[in-house]
Amino acid sequence: MTQTHITALSESHIEYLKRTFGDAVTFEPEKLRVYASDASLKTGTVLAMVRPTCTSQVQTLMRWADEERVYIHPRGRGTSLSGGCVPTRPGIVVSMTGMDRILDISNEDFVAEIEPGVNTAQFQAECAKRGLFYPPDPASGKATTVGGNVMTCAGGLRAVKYGVTRDYVLGMEIVLPGGKLLKLGGRTHKDVIGLDLSRMIVGSEGTLGIVTKLYLKLLPKPEASASVLVGYPSLDAALSSMGKVFAAGILPCAVEFMNETVLEILTKTGECPWPDTVHSLLLFQIDGSRETIPLENARLARQLDDALWTMEGVGAEEENKLWAFRRRVSAASYVLGPDRIGGDMAVPRGSLLKAVRRFEEIARNNGKRLIGFGHAGDGNIHANLHYDASDPDDTERTLKTHHELDEAVLEFGGSLSGEHGGGCLKDVGRQLGKEEHAMMRQVRELFDPNGILNPAKGY
Amino acid sequence: MTQTHITALSESHIEYLKRTFGDAVTFEPEKLRVYASDASLKTGTVLAMVRPTCTSQVQTLMRWADEERVYIHPRGRGTSLSGGCVPTRPGIVVSMTGMDRILDISNEDFVAEIEPGVNTAQFQAECAKRGLFYPPDPASGKATTVGGNVMTCAGGLRAVKYGVTRDYVLGMEIVLPGGKLLKLGGRTHKDVIGLDLSRMIVGSEGTLGIVTKLYLKLLPKPEASASVLVGYPSLDAALSSMGKVFAAGILPCAVEFMNETVLEILTKTGECPWPDTVHSLLLFQIDGSRETIPLENARLARQLDDALWTMEGVGAEEENKLWAFRRRVSAASYVLGPDRIGGDMAVPRGSLLKAVRRFEEIARNNGKRLIGFGHAGDGNIHANLHYDASDPDDTERTLKTHHELDEAVLEFGGSLSGEHGGGCLKDVGRQLGKEEHAMMRQVRELFDPNGILNPAKGY
Repeated sequence: MTQTHITALSESHIEYLKRTFGDAVTFEPEKLRVYASDASLKTGTVLAMVRPTCTSQVQTLMRWADEERVYIHPRGRGTSLSGGCVPTRPGIVVSMTGMDRILDISNEDFVAEIEPGVNTAQFQAECAKRGLFYPPDPASGKATTVGGNVMTCAGGLRAVKYGVTRDYVLGMEIVLPGGKLLKLGGRTHKDVIGLDLSRMIVGSEGTLGIVTKLYLKLLPKPEASASVLVGYPSLDAALSSMGKVFAAGILPCAVEFMNETVLEILTKTGECPWPDTVHSLLLFQIDGSRETIPLENARLARQLDDALWTMEGVGAEEENKLWAFRRRVSAASYVLGPDRIGGDMAVPRGSLLKAVRRFEEIARNNGKRLIGFGHAGDGNIHANLHYDASDPDDTERTLKTHHELDEAVLEFGGSLSGEHGGGCLKDVGRQLGKEEHAMMRQVRELFDPNGILNPAKGY
Repeated sequence: MTQTHITALSESHIEYLKRTFGDAVTFEPEKLRVYASDASLKTGTVLAMVRPTCTSQVQTLMRWADEERVYIHPRGRGTSLSGGCVPTRPGIVVSMTGMDRILDISNEDFVAEIEPGVNTAQFQAECAKRGLFYPPDPASGKATTVGGNVMTCAGGLRAVKYGVTRDYVLGMEIVLPGGKLLKLGGRTHKDVIGLDLSRMIVGSEGTLGIVTKLYLKLLPKPEASASVLVGYPSLDAALSSMGKVFAAGILPCAVEFMNETVLEILTKTGECPWPDTVHSLLLFQIDGSRETIPLENARLARQLDDALWTMEGVGAEEENKLWAFRRRVSAASYVLGPDRIGGDMAVPRGSLLKAVRRFEEIARNNGKRLIGFGHAGDGNIHANLHYDASDPDDTERTLKTHHELDEAVLEFGGSLSGEHGGGCLKDVGRQLGKEEHAMMRQVRELFDPNGILNPAKGY
């Protein structure tokens, strides 16, 4: 007999929450408004917001919510672009920003123990102070929490060389619906005893439980880095040049690309140092020791003989000037329309050029322009479309384009999402096979038999 | 109503298997003998051996075995040291060596598609021919299959820098008990759509299904490498020296250590180039480009000022001479007794010295010597004990020591296994919490409701 989930809190629910969580619970509509949405701008209904400060509070909440069939929507800093934090059903939003303590960063073990609400950039900075390095580097790291990164298996700029968030999660503590606490993995870099539930929980988009503690693997911090911005006549030339770099045995930490439309909007919206003949850019970053960086830079330069133009930067300050062009893309894109719909699809790396060209064609056929940039080294494309939401025809053509892009991604054997996750916006059933999807849902049901966690999200 | 598993094949079972699998099935006791055991030397009862050559054969077998409640024991090359391939219950051994095709190695996608029976060393060599690099490098890679590596999440020598097998598995095809085929992941380096079942299946020790195809991530092959063998007066000095290397921001691909007992047996059993004052060794390997290797070597050397003695090798041929000492350890150990019981525990890296010293003390208290070596950079210790199995007193003291070592590992917050897996020899319940263990078993039951796969193995 399945009990129906509640869609409004009763007086006694409210009483219970106030009594149990005190200052940590909010019912004021003013304060709840921000929790109704995330960076996707999609909205839902928030019945209350709880900001726990310790694991036992999370357990108490999850026990109660499971018994009472109250939907729970866990949330970090709400930067999801795919609606991963949107309360898709009326429910309680659980903000994990109240659990933001760095418990330990160990130079001996190369391990950090942190709570999930720790800000990513701040955590990276604390590691760096100790000569340690936490490689996952989502572009939005200044805003995100590490817990949010873990729930989406965030990738980011350095994934080419260093992999994604999953590769740095050694273990975790997680509270399941019903309040049970699981302690998985720990401070050893290697552990092959038992089933590795941790690594499956990474990227599970808050559908299996609420993480309350993370064990993360750290590396020694590379001494130095350098970047080079490289101009080409076309994206074809740019990506064929990237192929040569990899073929030469060079493994950069980052390789970003920008298509012709991106250069057009950058030129329109600000000063650009490259000549008019440049219509596509690559941006490489390498890291290493102070002594080897000049040599690696020269080695990289030798593979870039098809380039029309290059600009080098060694060290954070100089490099920042180059990365500023990459960071400008998002804001500059609004010259093509006040509203945006974005993609973060991934294709096999060798199909990147064909995929972007196909996406551009699809956009053109619908009277749209494709803003194509992203992590070329991973085949991870940010394919953005801008439009005017007050124009029904533009809106329709844009949504049609967006839908057709996803279709094309799957034709290339790609994934609808390389970084952001399914959230509540992606039609993951188009990608996942029926049997595979069913098995994922069965695992989900095992963790959350009453379906209280993040309904209609993920998969 | 649970049907009991069969412990002997009926005439009609044999008829069915012969008719269905033809030459791919064997019942001859002579031929079955090898499949009764693995490198652990523990044995079980093999009713038949099937060596499928395609996925549909695996499906047919798994459908039939599930219906008939026949235990299935999948197997690669049988190199498990923890009894992972031993038929713990009378059943059918499925040798995956018949599915050993390399389907694709792509220079464009940096992806390989292979069948699980491909030999690890051969696969690495095929990648290298194309300028590509498959980093996971178990010491037994010449003998193992990649599928076996995936089932144990094999680590190996290069894990310090490059991580373990899991970090290179992008996706897989797997046949579940009942014959269902799941296709998970694929050729994209990044994919965050759906639950990542693949990464949980890595390291699952053949308890969830039989993998029939693997998608593996490749890197560009580093141009050059160098190794240095470094001698110290004690393990204390060696490991404090390793700490300095990491603190200087150097990330070697491998750091191996050998304790005083290892040096004693190496000296006893062959020529050794180091002076008498050396009682402990570290062996570093670094990789990079031809131009940077000399600089990185010099940088590493600067951190080794506590060393009594060093011997450098640049390039495969020179390096092999240094690694030969590491490879000699296993054979040389037999001077301490004709029989061996080994550990492959992992501890947090910073506890390595204390853990080895504690292990040595435990051994000493039982009148034994501890052969301690392994992957210092991962905190992964090979703690071997040699004894004479025909001597009951020695045997008892050795087993007691072995048991006490595992106890000590857990006190250090470590894992009973960093590489080999639980198999049928490790008492994983000592490490895993009750709730955690129960949840792992529930996931297992979801994949294998009738419990036909690898009973009494894993977790």
